Amino acid sequence: MEIKNYQIKGRIWLETDEGHQLGPGRQKLLQAIKELGSITEAAKKMKMSYRYAWEIINELNSASSLIIVEKNTGGSGGGGSKLTAAGEALLMQYEHCKIAFEEFKTEINSRK
Amino acid sequence: MEIKNYQIKGRIWLETDEGHQLGPGRQKLLQAIKELGSITEAAKKMKMSYRYAWEIINELNSASSLIIVEKNTGGSGGGGSKLTAAGEALLMQYEHCKIAFEEFKTEINSRK
Repeated sequence: MEIKNYQIKGRIWLETDEGHQLGPGRQKLLQAIKELGSITEAAKKMKMSYRYAWEIINELNSASSLIIVEKNTGGSGGGGSKLTAAGEALLMQYEHCKIAFEEFKTEINSRK
Repeated sequence: MEIKNYQIKGRIWLETDEGHQLGPGRQKLLQAIKELGSITEAAKKMKMSYRYAWEIINELNSASSLIIVEKNTGGSGGGGSKLTAAGEALLMQYEHCKIAFEEFKTEINSRK
């Protein structure tokens, strides 16, 4: 017997042992920094203060002992920020988990 | 490159198209009714009012057009409540999903 009209739903995120989290909101912030090359612009897009965006980035930067976002300093194009290779990897890891979780839910829901 | 200290975490629940949900709290309530044979006792164990427990059960009873919990009426042992076969099936469905989700997380986290 299966109660057919119930489907599995859920939420996932990445978390370190110390409780630092990367969920949908932070993923969008990192994505925006990647696209816009600027924390200021990314914060604007996310409708959060620069200060709050920077706190999140500081936390992520310290969470894995790897810099996730770095500020570009100097140069003719000076200023701006970008994801490091570790930042790109973290984003990709989250995306992979999200896709795997969608597949997992689809599989569970189709078993009935 | 993998950010090794991030692990996948998450939460799952069952949900109907109409948004009726069965998550960890309601699962515990159904489990308590199953064990105690009484909504009153189950509500006590869950530290919720009988009224609130009954509202949840009413919602679950109407959510799938299947009675999940039924009241025993009359008889020498009169009173009390129990899970129907549909209720047992719903509990089991939730348990299966939970186990599958644990396996899913373990698998994802061991890929690294």
